[in-house]
Amino acid sequence: MSEQAEHSTGGVYSSKGKEYARDTRYLPTRLKRAVAPGEDAVAIEPGRYRLIAARACPWANRAIIDRRLLGLEDALSLGLPGPTHDADSWTFDLDPGGVDPVLGIHKLKDAYLARDPQYPRGITVPAIVDTTTGAVVTNDFAQITLDFATEWKDFHRPGAPDLYPEALRDEMDQVMRRVYTEINNGVYRCGFAGTQESYDAAYDRLFAALDWVEERLTTRRYLMGEHITEADVRLFTTLVRFDAVYHNHFKTNRNKLIEMPALWGYARDLFQTPGFGDTVDFEQIKQHYYVVHSDLNPLQIVPKGPDLSGWLTDHDRGSLGGSPFGDGTPPGPVRPAERAPHTILES
Amino acid sequence: MSEQAEHSTGGVYSSKGKEYARDTRYLPTRLKRAVAPGEDAVAIEPGRYRLIAARACPWANRAIIDRRLLGLEDALSLGLPGPTHDADSWTFDLDPGGVDPVLGIHKLKDAYLARDPQYPRGITVPAIVDTTTGAVVTNDFAQITLDFATEWKDFHRPGAPDLYPEALRDEMDQVMRRVYTEINNGVYRCGFAGTQESYDAAYDRLFAALDWVEERLTTRRYLMGEHITEADVRLFTTLVRFDAVYHNHFKTNRNKLIEMPALWGYARDLFQTPGFGDTVDFEQIKQHYYVVHSDLNPLQIVPKGPDLSGWLTDHDRGSLGGSPFGDGTPPGPVRPAERAPHTILES
Repeated sequence: MSEQAEHSTGGVYSSKGKEYARDTRYLPTRLKRAVAPGEDAVAIEPGRYRLIAARACPWANRAIIDRRLLGLEDALSLGLPGPTHDADSWTFDLDPGGVDPVLGIHKLKDAYLARDPQYPRGITVPAIVDTTTGAVVTNDFAQITLDFATEWKDFHRPGAPDLYPEALRDEMDQVMRRVYTEINNGVYRCGFAGTQESYDAAYDRLFAALDWVEERLTTRRYLMGEHITEADVRLFTTLVRFDAVYHNHFKTNRNKLIEMPALWGYARDLFQTPGFGDTVDFEQIKQHYYVVHSDLNPLQIVPKGPDLSGWLTDHDRGSLGGSPFGDGTPPGPVRPAERAPHTILES
Repeated sequence: MSEQAEHSTGGVYSSKGKEYARDTRYLPTRLKRAVAPGEDAVAIEPGRYRLIAARACPWANRAIIDRRLLGLEDALSLGLPGPTHDADSWTFDLDPGGVDPVLGIHKLKDAYLARDPQYPRGITVPAIVDTTTGAVVTNDFAQITLDFATEWKDFHRPGAPDLYPEALRDEMDQVMRRVYTEINNGVYRCGFAGTQESYDAAYDRLFAALDWVEERLTTRRYLMGEHITEADVRLFTTLVRFDAVYHNHFKTNRNKLIEMPALWGYARDLFQTPGFGDTVDFEQIKQHYYVVHSDLNPLQIVPKGPDLSGWLTDHDRGSLGGSPFGDGTPPGPVRPAERAPHTILES
């Protein structure tokens, strides 16, 4: 996704005098293995649907990571809007001619209007589009990735990890809920706060939660223990943007990520794991926030920093035990057409 | 001082499409021990002049530090404008009734207009005001502190350090010049850059200079070697604001000060030396930049961070040898009326 305002109006994300509240209404249609009569869902067909996910956006980054971890590349193609956008939201300005090669559209908004000519809410990523109709099926970012892990199982690669293990779901749902409300959305609550009071309260909430995961990850290699799960994907996409953007742009500046030893080791561990860092494009991330949120950054200057070389340094998280993919295997190399243009990893 | 625009127009410091250039024209009248016929100078008289210096402003902070290091409190009184100001610039809003108790004015601008009813440039601090006329004598920030060290010698406290030693002046002038153009002013060049290109160039210049002092201070306790000099005062006032303001607000974010081991040790060493950290008010510093520069920070939210506790940690700079005050002594405690309201030092 990305906050409503970010994709509907362009340029104005904060409101002086108001605290920030995310619009969490999405198109709830699901893609499922089997659809019950009357259910708001469509049946998964390999090759029919297209994931539209900007690398810049943390909510879309989740889906890009999961698609790669699970090996869904052949079953679900990927369209990649550029990092910045106008009042009409995300566009395919990185593609030849500024047109998505499969959908044939300039603006993601067209796929929303194909679903509903009066579509009233934010034009958000990730979105899954039916290539036969050109219409968005769903933009419900949280459900999309859970369904990747469960409903799309027939199309997982051999060795794909179980990102949503049944035995862990009760605890995992609680952890993911807290990660979402306090951290993933918590940084936005700081950055788009329109009053000093709402900012101050948002900052305290955010760092209380970061202290919680810092402690949790001091003795656990991953959020749920021994192996990577969807909970890690969700925390990672915020952590990887923390020093590059949020610390400055959203004023989440009690400390940088690199000052929290467990979290910084954990973030590097994931970054260096196939499927995570190889989806990350720091240049696109910085461009997105600093250019699009011109109400927070009127001159739209994009910082040159921070120095990113630390992401590739040793982390010693292996000493906590665990194995990222459990009984499975890491994904293979990124497909050349899907390489992050400014990756800091050696190819 | 503080950049022209900061004190003349209020609210607009950057100019889209333009690089930043500081107006460096000041009232050049000097205060001297002896005045030659025809010289643009006045004779120093103890108790007659008043230093107006906002704690928030790095250029004024120099003068506050030097006055304390040299023990000029009785010879030169101190007026302290608050951290924020309006289009008319600095005001005495922290004083009872919003009036400077000696000058009897609300706005520093009045003292500039007493000097020149058509005063055309920025209303800047530090300024030295003649209490018998209410008029600004000088706001030439660089000359003011050199004159403290030399022309005001008759009024130095016993044990005052020599902040501008004759034997070092040639090298020291070069070091101070580079510190000024590349670092003191370099952070502003980043922050007020109106184009991506001028920002990028300013960032590279700044960090090249910070790498230079980092290296210089790896083997020297102080910039000029064994003892504190004016060169250290000038570098300190920028370093102490670096993580609290410049890293975020001016986008000087290759790394935080705390990531540069020699500079961070050096800055803490000075901070913990009487006369330095006890003049610093981080709250006023943050309020100033984030509220006054509303063109850079339209919502005027003041960040809660960073965590400042590191300033009080051990620095081990003593292992480089040297002695801060040479043959002299540190200044005594801060006078109660002059304590920084939000000092992080124990009183």
